[in-house]
Amino acid sequence: MVDIIQKKRDNGVLTKSETTWMIEGYAKGEIPDYQMAAWAMAVYFQGMEMQEIADLTMAMVETGHQIDLSSIPGIKVDKHSTGGVGDKVTLILAPLVASFGVPVAKMSGRGLGHTGGTIDKLESIHGYQVERTQAAFVSQVKEIGISVIGQSDELVKADKLLYALRDVTATVDIIPLIASSIMSKKIAAGSDAILLDVTVGTGAFMKNIADARVLAKTMVELGNAVGRKTVAVITDMRQPLGETIGNRLEIAESLSVLQGGGRDDLKVFIAELAQIMLSLGGVTKTIDEILAHLSNGAALEKFKEMIQSQDGDFDELVAHPIHPTAFSKTVLSPKTGYIKSFDALVAGHLAMRAGAGRSVKSDVLDLDAGVRLFKKIGDQVSEGEPLFEIVYNKASFDVTTEINVMLGAIEITEEKISIKEIVEIIK
Amino acid sequence: MVDIIQKKRDNGVLTKSETTWMIEGYAKGEIPDYQMAAWAMAVYFQGMEMQEIADLTMAMVETGHQIDLSSIPGIKVDKHSTGGVGDKVTLILAPLVASFGVPVAKMSGRGLGHTGGTIDKLESIHGYQVERTQAAFVSQVKEIGISVIGQSDELVKADKLLYALRDVTATVDIIPLIASSIMSKKIAAGSDAILLDVTVGTGAFMKNIADARVLAKTMVELGNAVGRKTVAVITDMRQPLGETIGNRLEIAESLSVLQGGGRDDLKVFIAELAQIMLSLGGVTKTIDEILAHLSNGAALEKFKEMIQSQDGDFDELVAHPIHPTAFSKTVLSPKTGYIKSFDALVAGHLAMRAGAGRSVKSDVLDLDAGVRLFKKIGDQVSEGEPLFEIVYNKASFDVTTEINVMLGAIEITEEKISIKEIVEIIK
Repeated sequence: MVDIIQKKRDNGVLTKSETTWMIEGYAKGEIPDYQMAAWAMAVYFQGMEMQEIADLTMAMVETGHQIDLSSIPGIKVDKHSTGGVGDKVTLILAPLVASFGVPVAKMSGRGLGHTGGTIDKLESIHGYQVERTQAAFVSQVKEIGISVIGQSDELVKADKLLYALRDVTATVDIIPLIASSIMSKKIAAGSDAILLDVTVGTGAFMKNIADARVLAKTMVELGNAVGRKTVAVITDMRQPLGETIGNRLEIAESLSVLQGGGRDDLKVFIAELAQIMLSLGGVTKTIDEILAHLSNGAALEKFKEMIQSQDGDFDELVAHPIHPTAFSKTVLSPKTGYIKSFDALVAGHLAMRAGAGRSVKSDVLDLDAGVRLFKKIGDQVSEGEPLFEIVYNKASFDVTTEINVMLGAIEITEEKISIKEIVEIIK
Repeated sequence: MVDIIQKKRDNGVLTKSETTWMIEGYAKGEIPDYQMAAWAMAVYFQGMEMQEIADLTMAMVETGHQIDLSSIPGIKVDKHSTGGVGDKVTLILAPLVASFGVPVAKMSGRGLGHTGGTIDKLESIHGYQVERTQAAFVSQVKEIGISVIGQSDELVKADKLLYALRDVTATVDIIPLIASSIMSKKIAAGSDAILLDVTVGTGAFMKNIADARVLAKTMVELGNAVGRKTVAVITDMRQPLGETIGNRLEIAESLSVLQGGGRDDLKVFIAELAQIMLSLGGVTKTIDEILAHLSNGAALEKFKEMIQSQDGDFDELVAHPIHPTAFSKTVLSPKTGYIKSFDALVAGHLAMRAGAGRSVKSDVLDLDAGVRLFKKIGDQVSEGEPLFEIVYNKASFDVTTEINVMLGAIEITEEKISIKEIVEIIK
């Protein structure tokens, strides 16, 4: 292992057998954390070649269980987001794609810090089960064409170890390691094709477009190198996505979009993503045809089938999409103009502190808490008009301070700004 | 700690309080190896500023016991070598310097790999005790002006941990860390001034003069920055030092030099080092005055006093300087000419395998085994004249193979080469 670390430190390229030996040994506990930490720091400075990244990724995949989706007919398309604030894309996109007959067998994660997690959001639907055996998961997708469950703990053991180690050794922001971490989980999850949503902006892991582009290109090349057709979109995460941040709030917003409501910009964005996923699944549709499935109830029907198949109470959701909280505070605009910025990171942290997110893994969520945004970048606002609302249950929440922090993160100017969610598509 | 690693990774300069916090925490076991490994690898790429190295060194010193030599009158001068093959300098230099009234209170180490250790060599003197309490050590220096003992395990705890970690994480060859490791031990050992012998060549840790110069300059600056007057000499370690490699063999050669014998080049080299040490101790002497103490028995007397004060059998040493081994093999020169090279690394490994050294720490030494060199670089040799002799006790030692390897490392040419032990002096 010392030779491998030194080779990487001296800008060498590890062979497949070296990489495999290292990752196998690490997963078995035979290679200690301190050697992996030294290797990771060397990678920070020296980088990795594409073949090395592909070898690393496949070696990591081999350290865990792999989901076998081959009994499901058709091209199975997976989707992954690098994380955002108010990111409810999967909740709408998955039933939308499934409504066109392209099977969606998706595993999602939980939220941490300012980014939410799809699984937490789904758990705000009464009864919804996120844990399923592989057999039940596959059988549901065969039957109704869709299932979204929590990620199995048995996938990619080496990634879990390495991810935890990188977190405490200042080796998180290394693109080859980010790419292999994400892609190893997607590959182990068994789909044939992958759509990657690489978010960029204050609310995203990638803060600038150049880094986002390198990560996106790396993952697309990597996916294709290991035989999974992969497309990446770079999307704008300067502001939260849609109108809500918070678990039940986002479920309610998703329901509304599936019922034909919601903001147009969000609907078009999701339709564009659906178009790419459908195309990866071998189905060609126009944006209008896709939007029609949001207005005609076709996607809603898939959402309902999924919830009910996973023991969720769809009727309760429709009857009471939003659960009232003990406290709420609506904040009015201090001036007239157009919203110029609405910092996603600040908004994400606010929602987290209100109870919607975890600052550490062991935090318990308040599924009903969160933030509603009445205005987004480019929207016109008048002085005294509602800007946002904070809903929460904790009496100890210092709402006055939080409002001031949030107001400091919202800029209102005289000129109208326009932004587009999809910045770039990388195939 | 993650912030500290990241700061170093991003080419920041750690403050004194950051460095002290890190090293204290590491010594206490509060900072794990994997974080120190990531920091060390970041230092490999980003380096450290002199003030950082000084802070690191003093923080390491504070993690262990420090020897108090203040009760010994005069300027106490220590000496350190970065390691070599056949390096018996301390055995001759320490009594030589002490014979001029400059006190030498020295702690030495054991050998590993191709480099020998002074303490192992001293243990080849019957009865010689290398372990002494601090009180006994100081009191002996007060009484007779000299003591050479083993390095206390209680000095510089952080260095022991970090050294072991660097060894297994490809972070050994990092000059700021080498410098702080060496200097922390010298500073903890309590002397007022330090002479550093930075060896360079195949048999040394530093393989080229440029690296040796950077290390020497770093340590000299570092010593002076923390209030210890420090001088470094860069010395040639392309070939073994003197005429012997092996513990008892080197003791015998040292005795011979102290009795007025030995090779002239070795004597002049040691006299030059003595001149610098004496000068650091406030005593000015010419090379001839110093050489006189080798021929008139003054240095020998100090050597005898030291051995006897530490329970060693000086009379047995004088009566039987070399203990015969079960096997020996003298190798004759295959041709006539001048020795052009005599690879120190190859010779060191040969002696090690013959039993004189340890390939791993737990190996038991054969104190009498080793190699005698009848010719050195620049010496004339005739075909059939003895070139070197291997002495050993292990019947399993494959002497034929070893001789061929050694012959392959000796070049004989028609032109006479001359080399000088001291390449450069850095103050």
